[in-house]
Amino acid sequence: MRQQDISGFFARASELDPEDYLLLDYYFECSGDPKIAAAHLCSEQSTAQWKRVDVDEDYRPRFAAKVIDLEVETELSSTSYLLDPPVAGPVSACRVRIAHPHRNFGPRLPNLISAVLGEGAYFAPDIPLVKLLDIEFPASFLAAFQGPGFGIDGLRKRWGIHGRPFFFGVIKPNIGLPPEPFAELAHQAWLGGLDIAKDDEMLADPDWSPLRQRSALLGEARARAEQATGVPKVYLANITDEVDRLLELHDIAVGNGANAVMVNALPVGLSAVRMLRRHAKVPLIAHFPFIAAVSRLPNFGVHTRVLTRLQRLAGFDVIIMPGFGSRMRVTEAEVLENVAACVDPMGPIKPALPVPGGSDSAATLERVYQNIGNVDFGFVPGRGVFGHAMGPRGGAASLRQAWEAIAAGVDVNEYARERPELAAAMEQFGRTG
Amino acid sequence: MRQQDISGFFARASELDPEDYLLLDYYFECSGDPKIAAAHLCSEQSTAQWKRVDVDEDYRPRFAAKVIDLEVETELSSTSYLLDPPVAGPVSACRVRIAHPHRNFGPRLPNLISAVLGEGAYFAPDIPLVKLLDIEFPASFLAAFQGPGFGIDGLRKRWGIHGRPFFFGVIKPNIGLPPEPFAELAHQAWLGGLDIAKDDEMLADPDWSPLRQRSALLGEARARAEQATGVPKVYLANITDEVDRLLELHDIAVGNGANAVMVNALPVGLSAVRMLRRHAKVPLIAHFPFIAAVSRLPNFGVHTRVLTRLQRLAGFDVIIMPGFGSRMRVTEAEVLENVAACVDPMGPIKPALPVPGGSDSAATLERVYQNIGNVDFGFVPGRGVFGHAMGPRGGAASLRQAWEAIAAGVDVNEYARERPELAAAMEQFGRTG
Repeated sequence: MRQQDISGFFARASELDPEDYLLLDYYFECSGDPKIAAAHLCSEQSTAQWKRVDVDEDYRPRFAAKVIDLEVETELSSTSYLLDPPVAGPVSACRVRIAHPHRNFGPRLPNLISAVLGEGAYFAPDIPLVKLLDIEFPASFLAAFQGPGFGIDGLRKRWGIHGRPFFFGVIKPNIGLPPEPFAELAHQAWLGGLDIAKDDEMLADPDWSPLRQRSALLGEARARAEQATGVPKVYLANITDEVDRLLELHDIAVGNGANAVMVNALPVGLSAVRMLRRHAKVPLIAHFPFIAAVSRLPNFGVHTRVLTRLQRLAGFDVIIMPGFGSRMRVTEAEVLENVAACVDPMGPIKPALPVPGGSDSAATLERVYQNIGNVDFGFVPGRGVFGHAMGPRGGAASLRQAWEAIAAGVDVNEYARERPELAAAMEQFGRTG
Repeated sequence: MRQQDISGFFARASELDPEDYLLLDYYFECSGDPKIAAAHLCSEQSTAQWKRVDVDEDYRPRFAAKVIDLEVETELSSTSYLLDPPVAGPVSACRVRIAHPHRNFGPRLPNLISAVLGEGAYFAPDIPLVKLLDIEFPASFLAAFQGPGFGIDGLRKRWGIHGRPFFFGVIKPNIGLPPEPFAELAHQAWLGGLDIAKDDEMLADPDWSPLRQRSALLGEARARAEQATGVPKVYLANITDEVDRLLELHDIAVGNGANAVMVNALPVGLSAVRMLRRHAKVPLIAHFPFIAAVSRLPNFGVHTRVLTRLQRLAGFDVIIMPGFGSRMRVTEAEVLENVAACVDPMGPIKPALPVPGGSDSAATLERVYQNIGNVDFGFVPGRGVFGHAMGPRGGAASLRQAWEAIAAGVDVNEYARERPELAAAMEQFGRTG
């Protein structure tokens, strides 16, 4: 880019109509002049060639992404991560805020992703490493999206869960177990106090557990559990499958008594979720496969909170995300940023229920609750319920007992003394967490 | 995992029916014993809990992913990349080959991605860094997929392009230019010798260039160009949009004379592409936004060749990929691995045309051709055609002239002496490459 072309990719925020622009925060490491690199980052993600040859015109004022803030954070002797081909010499570590005109593509998720996480971001000259840290949408853009159909309040009303966290459990064994015993495990967990028995994210519609048969058995077991306990119970069916089967599988599962459905967001695609949202009669739950592959490294890829915002925009009522357990390899701060991204004000878009998960049990509930600081979250053990030494009924009971203690301000270990389920959970799982 | 449980996740390849398993090659860095880490990697991606409490059963023989080869490559004093939270102490850098039973989910792309690039891969205990390096499918799995509808031979026949590369050009200015002058640019490029004039991957269906209007004008311009030149011309319309508009936009574009359509593979989702493939009447072309975010780092994420194989499986006839230019930040070896992934034998699945792209022009054609070593590729300049000093007609002519020289074994610069278009291209773009 010639020196005189750079200014077309810079603007003062006050000169722009905020309704016309997405705000993008990127971290990047660049060789050479950060101003030129930032201009490239804008150019490549918007109007990379802004005039025809031999025509006096300039598409930048209306169509260019524009730097509205640029800070050099530090100078590094080399890129944070060794690349192949390698990048020689020192780099500047920078933060940039870019105003990106959404008129370039309109309120469409695939086109949004293509613009802000596409060739423009990852192939800007002189920028070997870049991470999209956050995204903010103006009301004019949000207006085109439905967002969650129920929101946290709607889920509470629908499922009769008030003043406490939502207790999910991932039915295990997740792979291999036929539908009959699988339904029986869920039934036991519901009797023990579980709210939502869910399919594992890898259990979909295989021939050894067809969704039609499984959901029929689980729907029937759910009805029995509701009758036995007198409270609503939820069977969360995983309908992750090819896009052109999503609506059909939703209808089969819901028709059979599933009262929530799960989709693995990135593997299926956020746009397909938005399509499902238009059709869905029950809450939509997101699971997180593939997200770590783009988000784990601190200085490359995309921050999880961006993907959480996009999942909420696509219409998920519940977002399962890597949580506080050490296996999940995210910082507490990052989990909390994602919890915030679920519930932060977002124009007309309802909040989604955050479910930070990973190796949880009655032994980790207090920590999760204290970290989050309120009851608007879901808690989703797998083994903590279904691998509990006393079986899923005992496992579910241990969660509810742990919550009783926490809500009453009583020490959980103390409370466990007269509750064998909780005592067994603390004994079995208490060393992790 | 207990020591006695590990062996359930190991097998000899000779003991397994190859038709039942996908083969997965991962690189990983682990703390502790690599054998335990590899067992976790298998367990987490398949049957993480393989029996019910108090029931004598074992789902591992049929449903467990199994290590069939494990090599410790080297010991490192710390992980290749600094993580947050940090990983303390030395790690072992390993390669593992895993046999993953596809009966766990069946021939479905979202479920495949969830299994091999999901929580199982990225959250296995003791494995902070992991990269899926390659994947191999048995015939029994491939049989469920259509793959490319035309293949390279089919494209050659359909488009009348024989014994040479396919010449694509990305119409620029990509963003902001209204349909009328946009169509005129394409028309000029076709007259100059371009085969395929394509929409930029960021140009979709915005109100300032609605696909319906644009494709009608381009379709008409294409017909004129075919009449003028006497050879087939292709307008490649970008129909990247929300999933539930893909078929409609395909029909609009094709009805108006687009004879190929492009989809940004990851932003739209591979499963949606598979859906489109079932419906499509014209060749499907893939573009690569978002792929770099999961693939750039040598030791984390997923190798581009895996995503190329999945794009081919989903049904793309043409795969545009980061190519040889330095801006693209992939090694020559990696580009060639992706070219191979397009054309390698893959059971009944036809080959896809590889199009390594990025900052190309007449000045880079010889290098691309020499690297690939044959004519079965597409060449896709943007500025190299549409930013050419003599305009797109001159830019397109410069490509054909460069190819004439290469095919005749003549020095391109020598050949340029009497061809002003080629001379201008070498002058304007010759310093890059």
